[in-house]
Amino acid sequence: MKSKAIFYHAGCPVCVAAEQTVASALDPQRFDVEIVHLGENRRRVAEAEAVGVKSVPALVLSGAPFHINFGASLEALK
Amino acid sequence: MKSKAIFYHAGCPVCVAAEQTVASALDPQRFDVEIVHLGENRRRVAEAEAVGVKSVPALVLSGAPFHINFGASLEALK
Repeated sequence: MKSKAIFYHAGCPVCVAAEQTVASALDPQRFDVEIVHLGENRRRVAEAEAVGVKSVPALVLSGAPFHINFGASLEALK
Repeated sequence: MKSKAIFYHAGCPVCVAAEQTVASALDPQRFDVEIVHLGENRRRVAEAEAVGVKSVPALVLSGAPFHINFGASLEALK
């Protein structure tokens, strides 16, 4: 059974670079990857915060948040 | 042909968590992953800096650095 991986971003240049490399580098045999643009889908900001996401881009693997670089604070998306 | 992925860390708790999840989540069909403990192998700090690594843990994919969370500044390892 595949694990869920969620990549949250906000369209910033570092987000796009991270999406194209880190998110797409995950093993497709083991992960179902969902890409969420929080700038366009602000209703999911609360969901991201609930699992510990503090900035974007962030990758949530099996419920654990990993912040990649520092793109934009979630505060700016509210 | 596989791409080279290098995961630099320094043994800190967040590094270990990132190693066990992010680094191990990469597609083994596409990436050869090398794990480098910079605290135990300080001669490679300069190599990490040369590709833009500023803190650990960091994942270098196809030569591009992605910083994961913020564990320890490279300055502390010199």
